[in-house]
Amino acid sequence: MRRTSFSDMSCPIARSLDLIGEWWSLLIIREAFWGTRRFGEFEAHLGIAPNVLTQRLARLVEGGILEVVSESQNGRALEYRLSPKGVELSPVLVALAQWGDRNLPRPEGPATRIVERATGQDVAPITVMSASGHTLRPKEIAVVAGPGADPKEREQFAKARAKRAQRTPAA
Amino acid sequence: MRRTSFSDMSCPIARSLDLIGEWWSLLIIREAFWGTRRFGEFEAHLGIAPNVLTQRLARLVEGGILEVVSESQNGRALEYRLSPKGVELSPVLVALAQWGDRNLPRPEGPATRIVERATGQDVAPITVMSASGHTLRPKEIAVVAGPGADPKEREQFAKARAKRAQRTPAA
Repeated sequence: MRRTSFSDMSCPIARSLDLIGEWWSLLIIREAFWGTRRFGEFEAHLGIAPNVLTQRLARLVEGGILEVVSESQNGRALEYRLSPKGVELSPVLVALAQWGDRNLPRPEGPATRIVERATGQDVAPITVMSASGHTLRPKEIAVVAGPGADPKEREQFAKARAKRAQRTPAA
Repeated sequence: MRRTSFSDMSCPIARSLDLIGEWWSLLIIREAFWGTRRFGEFEAHLGIAPNVLTQRLARLVEGGILEVVSESQNGRALEYRLSPKGVELSPVLVALAQWGDRNLPRPEGPATRIVERATGQDVAPITVMSASGHTLRPKEIAVVAGPGADPKEREQFAKARAKRAQRTPAA
């Protein structure tokens, strides 16, 4: 079902999505964060078709997001856990969960709370912060060409900046 | 091509992915953050097929992430911009970009830098923070049932917690 590979794109968002942007992948990663390890548990918690789950788990292992921790005689009893690279996705998941709770609320209230384990208190809303530690609003941040940008990308960013300067900011 | 709707799931990550988890959607949102507004610009910058782009833009407008700001006689010349709900996705995008730069580095270096507009300095790495403002490592956070959890979900979270207590934490 994969139509285009984003892995060759220079944008780090595109390359990340190539690994984890697929519908089920982030939910599998979410399950792994909450302690799910076995094929059957992922299947039951997510209601995902076994063939799709097999593909997604293989892709996440191949991409170094999940690691196989134990293997039994039966392939289905493999256990998976997050690699250090997978664990580093936690701010992405927390930011997505917070966005969903704010923007797609349910009448019965949030089904989950993400808390500090030691205190049981809700974690703070995730924000983008400056190097000096103050919260930046979206219009206070910008993308600029990095050291690895090619001439075409530099031109595109310069154009975008010029265009933005003419317009009311989006937010 | 949509196989399952995540919109009825109680998990806020699942409901968010239902809107934005599709391969191209977050890249369209990224483009909108960088100032892209016209169909032809999205098409050129992303290298996306026009029929796919049409579908994705319609879905993002329907979901309230993008707004149509101007309409010409030719449908293709519609202009789109992020709604306030869309703008609130910025921490998700920044966290994804930072994760990609750290975990999927390119030999030529990052193509982009996300900076504070006023100073040109790179924004800080996004982390999960406690209510009292200190950075939490992934193993210091937990998910617990929220007010809207149903009995089945409460049981699942309680089970996950018991299981985690028996195991070495994943990180």
